[in-house]
Amino acid sequence: MVEPVSFGLTKEFRDRFQQALDERDGQFIQSNLEGINAADITSLLYEFDSEESKYVLDLLDIDIRAEIITDLDSDARVNFLKVYQPEELTAIIDRLDSDDAADILNELPIKTREEVLAGLDAVLRSQVIDLLRYDENVAGGLMAKELIKAKSHWTVVQCIDEIRKQVENVSKFYAVYVVDDQNKLLGRVPLQKLILTDSNTKVEDIYDPDLISVETHMEDTEVASVMRKYDLEAVPVVNVYGQLVGRITIDDVVDVITEQAEEERQLMSGISEDVEEDDSIWRLTRARLPWLVIGIIGGLISVQFIGVFEGDLLRITAIAFFIPLIQATGGNVGIQSSSIVVQSLANPGFVEDGLWKRLSKVFLVAVLNGFLLALIVLGANLLFGAGSDRLAVVVSIALFTVVLAASFIGTVTPLVLNKFGFNPALASGPFITTINDLLGLGIYFLTIHLML
Amino acid sequence: MVEPVSFGLTKEFRDRFQQALDERDGQFIQSNLEGINAADITSLLYEFDSEESKYVLDLLDIDIRAEIITDLDSDARVNFLKVYQPEELTAIIDRLDSDDAADILNELPIKTREEVLAGLDAVLRSQVIDLLRYDENVAGGLMAKELIKAKSHWTVVQCIDEIRKQVENVSKFYAVYVVDDQNKLLGRVPLQKLILTDSNTKVEDIYDPDLISVETHMEDTEVASVMRKYDLEAVPVVNVYGQLVGRITIDDVVDVITEQAEEERQLMSGISEDVEEDDSIWRLTRARLPWLVIGIIGGLISVQFIGVFEGDLLRITAIAFFIPLIQATGGNVGIQSSSIVVQSLANPGFVEDGLWKRLSKVFLVAVLNGFLLALIVLGANLLFGAGSDRLAVVVSIALFTVVLAASFIGTVTPLVLNKFGFNPALASGPFITTINDLLGLGIYFLTIHLML
Repeated sequence: MVEPVSFGLTKEFRDRFQQALDERDGQFIQSNLEGINAADITSLLYEFDSEESKYVLDLLDIDIRAEIITDLDSDARVNFLKVYQPEELTAIIDRLDSDDAADILNELPIKTREEVLAGLDAVLRSQVIDLLRYDENVAGGLMAKELIKAKSHWTVVQCIDEIRKQVENVSKFYAVYVVDDQNKLLGRVPLQKLILTDSNTKVEDIYDPDLISVETHMEDTEVASVMRKYDLEAVPVVNVYGQLVGRITIDDVVDVITEQAEEERQLMSGISEDVEEDDSIWRLTRARLPWLVIGIIGGLISVQFIGVFEGDLLRITAIAFFIPLIQATGGNVGIQSSSIVVQSLANPGFVEDGLWKRLSKVFLVAVLNGFLLALIVLGANLLFGAGSDRLAVVVSIALFTVVLAASFIGTVTPLVLNKFGFNPALASGPFITTINDLLGLGIYFLTIHLML
Repeated sequence: MVEPVSFGLTKEFRDRFQQALDERDGQFIQSNLEGINAADITSLLYEFDSEESKYVLDLLDIDIRAEIITDLDSDARVNFLKVYQPEELTAIIDRLDSDDAADILNELPIKTREEVLAGLDAVLRSQVIDLLRYDENVAGGLMAKELIKAKSHWTVVQCIDEIRKQVENVSKFYAVYVVDDQNKLLGRVPLQKLILTDSNTKVEDIYDPDLISVETHMEDTEVASVMRKYDLEAVPVVNVYGQLVGRITIDDVVDVITEQAEEERQLMSGISEDVEEDDSIWRLTRARLPWLVIGIIGGLISVQFIGVFEGDLLRITAIAFFIPLIQATGGNVGIQSSSIVVQSLANPGFVEDGLWKRLSKVFLVAVLNGFLLALIVLGANLLFGAGSDRLAVVVSIALFTVVLAASFIGTVTPLVLNKFGFNPALASGPFITTINDLLGLGIYFLTIHLML
């Protein structure tokens, strides 16, 4: 039978489940979770506290328990695993693939980590120890040690025997990797080829030597773009000597891509921690406050700055009317410009244009946009006249200049951030916007001061 | 030999290649592209015009040519294929998987499409015609017709024979799908199980009936979250009768996820078309202008609005000093709020909290943030005094109110947009920011007018 995808179970079910939990009604829980996909149970557990969740998990088969704990997102897991004893953790982690085991061990307090490591199966322990030394954002930190490896002089039958031995350990596999006696990666045999080839054929006669591999130190985002570019479902990882040390599967890379998008969204909107709507009020406040304060500091600086021009304001009050117009346009232009650069950095072309060619193009687009906007504003001001005609002309000149300056800052900032290893999306966030705001005000008031 | 990943070939190579193109030096081109991965050739072609690119492609094997044309991004392809004759297109499209063929046919002018369709191989033609009726953003539009299907009463040997027949057509496969005599999907047999099972075993004895499938009408973003949630490398697509009609592989979904992130980035930064840095100056200008104009209109409205309060401004010039502070804070708070909602909508929980619970939480976070910010501003104003103490208090009260209002608008707008089928990320874009700006100004000037 085809199980329907079971999204969004109802509030009623949650409440009934909570009642079963309060009554420690194990039978209700077990019978209702029977046959439910682990990923769905994971979503359900987010509704309950750690003790309750552990009660539910303890009712389930240890393999499903292990799968659910792998599925949990990292923040939730750190909290949840606090209610577990080291020996319980050992039993669960022993069931995991090396990459998931390493991820979870990395989240544990150092003492617990050592206790769990000591209790693991010897093979898994040595695999995990090998993985623990990599940063989580490089290929080595993404890869799993589990894979199917064949020597080039083996026959297809030997390959299949190896698969039989490993099938328990390797959950998803698409190909057998072929290595020489020094464990150097030579190529791969896709599973379908193995099925269709006569059993006595030698592996060296059928393997495909043209394969893409990545090195342990490649950054996760780069691994993601390699896998995306070449449409790979898995990529072998080699060390600097070209020896096969692990394998990255596409599901891990999908997570990298998704997290990258989330991080970018946070940077663009000025949120400094990875928060979700259901985090605590204090955490949400704390995540938002730093960037708001930067905006406030910018605002306080503009208070002082405009204060300098109090004389001009006293002379022509209408100057104040145009502050929001100037500021909003500067902000919008700046964000657009950096967003286009961020986009290009995410999809690098074959050969990048030089900086000057880029800037001159940005300049032309800014001139065009700035000119059109200045014209609209001039027309509107002359028509609805909220000040003298002379002021209208000066405002348009200032606006044009602000568009040019904001384009320049918006284009250069992400390039500089990227060059120094920061996420260029920061440039679309409040810090740069604040700087753009100040710059816009500066240009506006100076223009007025000089021309009126 | 393991081919190294060949990113970012040099500018020198591009120039040398251009020279070879100018001289129509086919030999140089062929020898340099020998053994290069199709995806890398695709990146290279973006550097040259359509005629030149076609010249290069015509030198290559037709299968590589087909792969490259599939790889091209849709905008580039639409332009590029204009230099092709229908019969050339037919030859190429005949080599493609049904989903890629359908995508390309959808991009062609209707007359060319019909000509090409008529020339296709009969099997592919009927598959493509079946696919053409789906929107590109539902499961039916993502799926390919190519897959390996087995009847439940078959033996493993029959399955392997079927694979042998289909192996030319199905480029990536991970499992055989099992159907009954009415083509209803029953389950799947992973390839590794097929390898390890005795040839005379019946399929019905080994297939796994617990599998996730999606229906043709499911939205692409939902397909993406299903595949991500359950870590699937491929998902079968069924029609409303549960009959197997196609299959979606993870590489297509990775593209969906990436495009979703790009679309969101564009909406958040107010760019109305899918543009890249290397598009034409006119296109870049056109993509940016609409949202800039909306910002300008907002700015012009605030000109009129502030004009109403000219009396207050004449009385207390210092009012003008705080306009940027109020406006920037309102904007930042609004963007943060909508971004958190967008995040939650992208990762839906098991049971969503009701609207009231959500809003009351947002309200508390806003009170906390607003209070802290108002306090900072009050302190700074009393210290550096850019106006009377009374004005300092009133500014802080207005700021607090603006934070509450912007939080509310920022939270509710994406929820409303989402409800009516729009992308909620629009709420972090310039349209809502402009509305927030106006609202902030309104609150500020009214507070001043009433309290001073």
